[in-house]
Amino acid sequence: MSDMHALVRRLYPLCRSITGDGVRRTLEIVSESIPLEISEVPTGTQVLDWTIPKEWNIRDAYIKDASGARVVDFAVSNLHVVGYSVPVSATMTLDELRPRLHTLPDQPDLVPYRTSYYAETWGFCLSENTLAGMGPGPYEVRVDSTLADGHLTYGEHVIPGGEEEVLVSCHVCHPSLANDNLAGVAVAVRLAQWLAGRKERRYTYRFVFAPGTIGAITWLARNRDRVDRVRHGVVLACAGDRGALTYKRSRRGDTEIDRVFAHVLRDREHTLLDFSPYGYDERQYCSPGFDLAVGSLTRTPYGGYPEYHTSADDPDFVSPEAMEDTLDVCRQAVEILERNRAYVNLSPYGEPQLGRRGLYGSLGGRSDTKQAQMAMLWVLNLSDGLHTLLDISERSTLPFAAVAEAARALHDAGLVKESAG
Amino acid sequence: MSDMHALVRRLYPLCRSITGDGVRRTLEIVSESIPLEISEVPTGTQVLDWTIPKEWNIRDAYIKDASGARVVDFAVSNLHVVGYSVPVSATMTLDELRPRLHTLPDQPDLVPYRTSYYAETWGFCLSENTLAGMGPGPYEVRVDSTLADGHLTYGEHVIPGGEEEVLVSCHVCHPSLANDNLAGVAVAVRLAQWLAGRKERRYTYRFVFAPGTIGAITWLARNRDRVDRVRHGVVLACAGDRGALTYKRSRRGDTEIDRVFAHVLRDREHTLLDFSPYGYDERQYCSPGFDLAVGSLTRTPYGGYPEYHTSADDPDFVSPEAMEDTLDVCRQAVEILERNRAYVNLSPYGEPQLGRRGLYGSLGGRSDTKQAQMAMLWVLNLSDGLHTLLDISERSTLPFAAVAEAARALHDAGLVKESAG
Amino acid sequence: MSDMHALVRRLYPLCRSITGDGVRRTLEIVSESIPLEISEVPTGTQVLDWTIPKEWNIRDAYIKDASGARVVDFAVSNLHVVGYSVPVSATMTLDELRPRLHTLPDQPDLVPYRTSYYAETWGFCLSENTLAGMGPGPYEVRVDSTLADGHLTYGEHVIPGGEEEVLVSCHVCHPSLANDNLAGVAVAVRLAQWLAGRKERRYTYRFVFAPGTIGAITWLARNRDRVDRVRHGVVLACAGDRGALTYKRSRRGDTEIDRVFAHVLRDREHTLLDFSPYGYDERQYCSPGFDLAVGSLTRTPYGGYPEYHTSADDPDFVSPEAMEDTLDVCRQAVEILERNRAYVNLSPYGEPQLGRRGLYGSLGGRSDTKQAQMAMLWVLNLSDGLHTLLDISERSTLPFAAVAEAARALHDAGLVKESAG
Repeated sequence: MSDMHALVRRLYPLCRSITGDGVRRTLEIVSESIPLEISEVPTGTQVLDWTIPKEWNIRDAYIKDASGARVVDFAVSNLHVVGYSVPVSATMTLDELRPRLHTLPDQPDLVPYRTSYYAETWGFCLSENTLAGMGPGPYEVRVDSTLADGHLTYGEHVIPGGEEEVLVSCHVCHPSLANDNLAGVAVAVRLAQWLAGRKERRYTYRFVFAPGTIGAITWLARNRDRVDRVRHGVVLACAGDRGALTYKRSRRGDTEIDRVFAHVLRDREHTLLDFSPYGYDERQYCSPGFDLAVGSLTRTPYGGYPEYHTSADDPDFVSPEAMEDTLDVCRQAVEILERNRAYVNLSPYGEPQLGRRGLYGSLGGRSDTKQAQMAMLWVLNLSDGLHTLLDISERSTLPFAAVAEAARALHDAGLVKESAG
Repeated sequence: MSDMHALVRRLYPLCRSITGDGVRRTLEIVSESIPLEISEVPTGTQVLDWTIPKEWNIRDAYIKDASGARVVDFAVSNLHVVGYSVPVSATMTLDELRPRLHTLPDQPDLVPYRTSYYAETWGFCLSENTLAGMGPGPYEVRVDSTLADGHLTYGEHVIPGGEEEVLVSCHVCHPSLANDNLAGVAVAVRLAQWLAGRKERRYTYRFVFAPGTIGAITWLARNRDRVDRVRHGVVLACAGDRGALTYKRSRRGDTEIDRVFAHVLRDREHTLLDFSPYGYDERQYCSPGFDLAVGSLTRTPYGGYPEYHTSADDPDFVSPEAMEDTLDVCRQAVEILERNRAYVNLSPYGEPQLGRRGLYGSLGGRSDTKQAQMAMLWVLNLSDGLHTLLDISERSTLPFAAVAEAARALHDAGLVKESAG
Repeated sequence: MSDMHALVRRLYPLCRSITGDGVRRTLEIVSESIPLEISEVPTGTQVLDWTIPKEWNIRDAYIKDASGARVVDFAVSNLHVVGYSVPVSATMTLDELRPRLHTLPDQPDLVPYRTSYYAETWGFCLSENTLAGMGPGPYEVRVDSTLADGHLTYGEHVIPGGEEEVLVSCHVCHPSLANDNLAGVAVAVRLAQWLAGRKERRYTYRFVFAPGTIGAITWLARNRDRVDRVRHGVVLACAGDRGALTYKRSRRGDTEIDRVFAHVLRDREHTLLDFSPYGYDERQYCSPGFDLAVGSLTRTPYGGYPEYHTSADDPDFVSPEAMEDTLDVCRQAVEILERNRAYVNLSPYGEPQLGRRGLYGSLGGRSDTKQAQMAMLWVLNLSDGLHTLLDISERSTLPFAAVAEAARALHDAGLVKESAG
């Protein structure tokens, strides 16, 4: 548990953006836990409808007052600079500087997060309180950045299994914001470690750590011919705030991954949302040309909390318990994906005599015995090749695990076989 | 606005029935506003399962008491005579006359509206109060009417556009009843005038002003080979009372016109009803052999108000504001019908880069900018040829106009094309 | 009415089980009311996945204390012996006997009902109060039973009609329990008598009186090649308690019988349940290989009342009124099954002129006339070969009988014909 939070704290100070050394350093740290295959895609590369932009790096940035004091200082928080700010070195009055300053008047203590990836400009973010204390100037203004040909960087971690894949995707382009999305990264890392320890895997699990939008688009562009291997997928984001879990369905809305998450969440406080083309990288995976079975798991969703995209989204904002809870739901979803299939009853005329085969508890009475018997009856009755174990679990309202156990017992007794379909 | 109410007042005194000069005069007055093509169909003509009846005309009718005073007088209100009454001239006691007198005991001030089109008889309608004041008689009773070979008359107004047609149908067979259906006629006239002023028309709009039941049957009989051009349609009736709007779905129940009216009405107090084979001429258009996509728009529906089919359904019962509201809903429905279509995203793999094409507000922040951006994302995501703009509007809960605007902008930018399907 | 309750009282004392003379005597008594074809299936016969067990018969059983008094006595109630108990004759202390004694600690006055068909054992059932009064012993313990090769017995009563069949199935394997299932047997007997008196029968009605589970399985095994004649069916059980009626849908869930019972029950307090593979012999009829359209009608369902499977389920527990109510619902269901079909409107273009054919009440005003007219309009509108009269009744919310009457009148007038489909 604490290792997830420690990872969030360690990654927090890095100045990430959609390109640059912040992303590289982030992926290096992740690869200490799970090995990553790193891709570097050159500036100017065409990726679907987009082009890889120049790479941005920054060393320092500040607004100094006449006394030489840094009123706004990148070294204190990388949120203070508008992401992708071009270099600047100037002396300006407050009046001249004012259009370059971004604050949150309704949250006067907080610094907002702003970027301008595709329009070359520069700016600073600061608290309304700081702005209120600034005199007329003049100020020394400096952004020590570079915007030059380079690369877009992303990393992949693959846990081999069957031919079909489960995609887990996290964006890694946000600077010092903890819930959005270091918590998602941390949960993904732990999920991958847990999966590696699982005895068998029906699916191959592919974890993608990439910058939002352009990173997912780049991955899709470079995997276009193999993307149909992705049978299920989930975008992990905002995985650590104290709100209840939210699952947003894929564009298709009724895929197995959609039903699996709904099933896992039904016993907790949660929210289910239909797909909308706004949010995180499910926007790209669910674009109509790809239309992948990829949903999105968050706690409080995109933009739904006051700390969102502000300096208040710091490591204290995310809770170890919340991340553990998110992880637990992911693990349960994996368990169902791995075990869910349809069976065919080999003795479909009347009920088979379970007692003769020792499948009925001879004494009965224990409530789990009763549940196990009901699960066997349900599996026998609905195993016509059309109903999966998840279908049976939902129709019977029995826990998936009880239904899967019943199927295993019936399979061992030769009463059902796996459906070919 | 006031011209609709003025038209109701002007048409009100005419003694309309399913045939005769009252209908002719009504159509003449309508044709002062919109040109009508008049059809005269001879008595005895077979129309579907029916036969055009004899034409009925009436000049006078009364019940005179011994003093020569007209106790009941057609000249005061044409409701006093049962529609299609055959001629009579007799002296009768009240006891003899009594079976011929129709009143509303529960609404003693009001005169009912009664007809007997297909069984030759005669009778008078009067208020219960008038009846209570009548002595034993004798009375001079006279109906100066003719029932003779002639014609059934109806009128059509066509506003040309594409090959497919939108049908707007109003019954014109009721005598001095304002809401049922002079208000419907008035709204139809104004809708036609507004449509004539619309720049382009995807559909041809056909307005039918015909007697109820037999008139619609006659129109269907004479247009049987071209009725499949009717893509959408609505029967307009009871369009002016102060109740909320009611849309009754077509027999098929999920046609585009059904969805369009439900969409337009969702932001107002309203009622949606499933089809039933009772009401106005939707009964004929939705008979199983035709099964047209024709719904019915009313305010308070058929028989749903105490003034229904009584002398209280007079011009004061209908309100200019209510008729304007009905007209507004019709205009909005037309706007959606004209603009609703499916598009195909030409850049369906990932999101296209909208910013590069100037489709993203560079500053953002205005709420309509946000709505416009969301609308573009939704149109891109669902433009797979399967979803119309109305589908997208309903799924996104964005206004249809915003979705249609987004589609236009994306079309102009070459990102979507109209679906062939 | 009283004859159903008299039959329950007469059958009550018999010691029934899944085989043996108790079932034979029960069927003899039933055959005094309706002739039965009796089947005797030898021990050892393979029936689907099962084998006919040895036949069990019992003459006496008791636990005697030192004074020679019968503390527990089969002669007082056959519930006192665990069903299928093997012979025993022994002297035992209470401590030795204790594991063989079954009580209901939470219902200390009542004797439970227990069986052990497929594991050879023996035991006694008694009230907790009786047990509390028993000293340390020793006791003389005796079960005078035989478990030997013999037969499984069931009976059928067939009321001939068309080729397709309606199956009514009741289990007859419970000893002195009145609601479960003598009430079901009694209702079935009366239903059969009523059906025999019906003028015409579209369906053949087959009543099966068989031991639960193994009996239904035996019937299915021996009728496997003709079971597809069963178009509709119902398992009757728990038909006499004072609770509201419960209908449990067939496995398919939307068959005609499911819709018919839902329709009949809609005007009474009732419960509708989805199929589950637990309960009575619907488990066998709805096993996936057969998947028959067989639901289950009970009052309070399986296990849902405190008297269930105890000595409190005696003849006083079932009420003549409740049985009559269950019978009434069955009769209504039959009426709909017999009359439900689809028609084709032969005059589908516009409404046919009903008045000309005398199908409109000339005076109107009576509420049943209005209903009859509405029913005719609905039948005409929906008679496209796709909608049955039950569909029309549900969509119109008119009573089925009114809709069926309208169809008959329209048929007599040549306006509709029976659909071939």
